[in-house]
Amino acid sequence: MPEFRKDPITNSWIIIATERSRRPYDYREKVENNVKYVSKENCPFCPGHENMTPNEIFSYRAPENNMSSWWVRGFPAHSPLLHIEGEFEHKGFGIYDSITGLGAHEIIVETPDHDTTLGTMSSNQVEKILWAYRDRIIDLKNDKRFRYVLIFKNHGKKAGASSIHHPHSQVIALPIVPKKIKEELEGARFHYKIKERCIFCDIIKQELKLDERVIWKGKHFILLSPWAPRFPFETWILPLKHSHDFTTISKEEILELSQLMKRFFRTLQKILANDFSFNLLLHDTPNLIPQEGYWTTIRSDFHWHFEIIPRIVNITGFEWGTGVYINHLPPEIATQEIKKAF
Amino acid sequence: MPEFRKDPITNSWIIIATERSRRPYDYREKVENNVKYVSKENCPFCPGHENMTPNEIFSYRAPENNMSSWWVRGFPAHSPLLHIEGEFEHKGFGIYDSITGLGAHEIIVETPDHDTTLGTMSSNQVEKILWAYRDRIIDLKNDKRFRYVLIFKNHGKKAGASSIHHPHSQVIALPIVPKKIKEELEGARFHYKIKERCIFCDIIKQELKLDERVIWKGKHFILLSPWAPRFPFETWILPLKHSHDFTTISKEEILELSQLMKRFFRTLQKILANDFSFNLLLHDTPNLIPQEGYWTTIRSDFHWHFEIIPRIVNITGFEWGTGVYINHLPPEIATQEIKKAF
Repeated sequence: MPEFRKDPITNSWIIIATERSRRPYDYREKVENNVKYVSKENCPFCPGHENMTPNEIFSYRAPENNMSSWWVRGFPAHSPLLHIEGEFEHKGFGIYDSITGLGAHEIIVETPDHDTTLGTMSSNQVEKILWAYRDRIIDLKNDKRFRYVLIFKNHGKKAGASSIHHPHSQVIALPIVPKKIKEELEGARFHYKIKERCIFCDIIKQELKLDERVIWKGKHFILLSPWAPRFPFETWILPLKHSHDFTTISKEEILELSQLMKRFFRTLQKILANDFSFNLLLHDTPNLIPQEGYWTTIRSDFHWHFEIIPRIVNITGFEWGTGVYINHLPPEIATQEIKKAF
Repeated sequence: MPEFRKDPITNSWIIIATERSRRPYDYREKVENNVKYVSKENCPFCPGHENMTPNEIFSYRAPENNMSSWWVRGFPAHSPLLHIEGEFEHKGFGIYDSITGLGAHEIIVETPDHDTTLGTMSSNQVEKILWAYRDRIIDLKNDKRFRYVLIFKNHGKKAGASSIHHPHSQVIALPIVPKKIKEELEGARFHYKIKERCIFCDIIKQELKLDERVIWKGKHFILLSPWAPRFPFETWILPLKHSHDFTTISKEEILELSQLMKRFFRTLQKILANDFSFNLLLHDTPNLIPQEGYWTTIRSDFHWHFEIIPRIVNITGFEWGTGVYINHLPPEIATQEIKKAF
């Protein structure tokens, strides 16, 4: 019998379609490999091709004084979605609203190595990427025009990635809080108002007690399959200690997180394919949030986390049109499969 | 300069990325044609193959007493997403909720003709499809376990359609109101609470006054590009007279609607391609809606309509992860292009 499950944070329903369920290893064949990517020779993100990108915003570099001796580097996107400079204007047309398309759109090249992935690079390299995430958020939050700094990564065509395969993340600073993040913030705030507890802390406590969807627990982080996953193998990484702000992460925490991320991606590569498609999204606190007439930051009612969503199955018209996702793999089985290969 | 625009009903933001804008005819090449479909010989929806489908629920038929002399027919889906029979149960596990996956999942075969489309069939045939939509909603609303009857159509692979190309629609009755419909209902109710006016009626009034996004206006219906379209050529059809319930449509109204639909799809075929991908979704009132503790139907605060969304561009990871859509074609230009070819 299929089952509707409700995400306790956003109150979105998903359907676990157990009867059509496939065994986890059936997902392997679903990965497409017939996609054309920009070759290493023409890759603007490879060392030696620095002049193919817009001017560097930052880089972490080896001590040698060589233009191409970087470990991680960032620059504005070549065709930015939004403009960083210009007048900021809210306009109204009767019942309609618009805002000038101001924002930042940056690329973080994660490694000089064209052919590596989060699962095959060293955890030391993953650590550098996480520091870059932190540093870009801190810098962009200084610009008070922006309400949200979004850090994400699309890998593979099914995840909506571009034709550049060289590992990179994207940073987008927006004058609005994006819809899906806002739903989560509002759900968490609602829970906090009623219970005076963080909903994510409540989820962690319940998951640890039930032990049905916990994949791994360390000193600082927990890796779990959510109760109502939209996709097979959807996985969340949350700090065990309540924290709304990713940028307050400590050196010790980032070390554990980078080792955990590398290990998790290596595990999914074993289960799915070396080059499986996925979206990685950091859900962090907004810069400013309107509350009772003035602007303030969120403290106790949000809990930052990463969501990792393998994109190995296509979205149907039903899912797109309704927002109700159909998942053929119950998260309890996904948890077992990941634990086995972890 | 790009522009953020807010949908006045759901308060979702989209980005009109004018600088990356393509000319409307540039969208033609984006239609994929290399998709494999079930052949006419093996098509379970073709006349003469009635025994390949589950038992008929209804049919509109020619007077001849011949199994295959139908114009439109409906039956349960071969692999239904949800089960129609069984015990209905709400369960709670601490902070988590689930409901048994009960529901109806039906197919409406729109025509005996395997190779036609909404743009090439007669408006008389489109009329029959619309009556079928009405009749299935009326029937399924009698089942008080269901809260929403969804009527939709996915055409083409990019729209998430199956491998059966024979024109068909889907009917899904759900024990929940789907997220995206709920957002619209809640937005419309909020507007009504404050203004004591229907937000869709307000939109129609403002659009008629501005005349920037109105494609066509008849005696009973209006065809318009919304202020904040998620995709190029997204178009809405609304009844001019306030009505929350599609099933109250009159014979005269359904006649105009079927002619309008046929003409609109024929126009999009001219602009895009004969076999362009799209989603068609009827946004209708829910069966029952919880309000202040008891169950009642909506009357003045919702306005039924069709949304037609050509799926000629892919969704990026950013759009999927944030819910903020990027549209390169301003609706004002889409309106002009459709009017030219109408």
